[in-house]
Amino acid sequence: MPQFQNVTVDKAANVYFDGKVTSRTVHLQDGSKVTLGIMLPGSYEFGTDTEEIMTIQSGELTVLLPDETEWKTIQGAGEFVVPANRKFKLEVSKVTDYVCSYK
Amino acid sequence: MPQFQNVTVDKAANVYFDGKVTSRTVHLQDGSKVTLGIMLPGSYEFGTDTEEIMTIQSGELTVLLPDETEWKTIQGAGEFVVPANRKFKLEVSKVTDYVCSYK
Repeated sequence: MPQFQNVTVDKAANVYFDGKVTSRTVHLQDGSKVTLGIMLPGSYEFGTDTEEIMTIQSGELTVLLPDETEWKTIQGAGEFVVPANRKFKLEVSKVTDYVCSYK
Repeated sequence: MPQFQNVTVDKAANVYFDGKVTSRTVHLQDGSKVTLGIMLPGSYEFGTDTEEIMTIQSGELTVLLPDETEWKTIQGAGEFVVPANRKFKLEVSKVTDYVCSYK
């Protein structure tokens, strides 16, 4: 099973949208961090502070990225990148398990 | 912030009850594991394979432990222990962030 090894995990969860989006912060050995998250079905808008690489491990959603006019669909596994200091919208249709990396 | 250090985390989430209960498995250095979980409001019944120590970090719920007739209320932080191979019931009223340890 894929794992993050030799890491530090914050005990407290990150909770958004009344718990419909939650994540755990994992600090990697190289000083960077990722969050491991779950999104339940719903419509969400997020903002970025840094560039974010969203790796969808399982689930189903459409995403409207900054400067795009067409929604991109991800079913099962997939990935998208959001530049720093931008907003993006998600329509999650099935429980989605993701890893978010920060540049 | 309290953390688990020098651990291994499974990338894939554990998902129960259509995602209303989810957790991440964290493997500790001593060979034991814990799960870091989120429960959304709802009614749940769980079964144990081993003794489980449930540490509630935040949230609100009542729990009916095996052989008990009265529900125990936890608001904010709290803890309860469930013996191996037993069932217990939870009524979660606020988003609950927990750590579950396995004996």
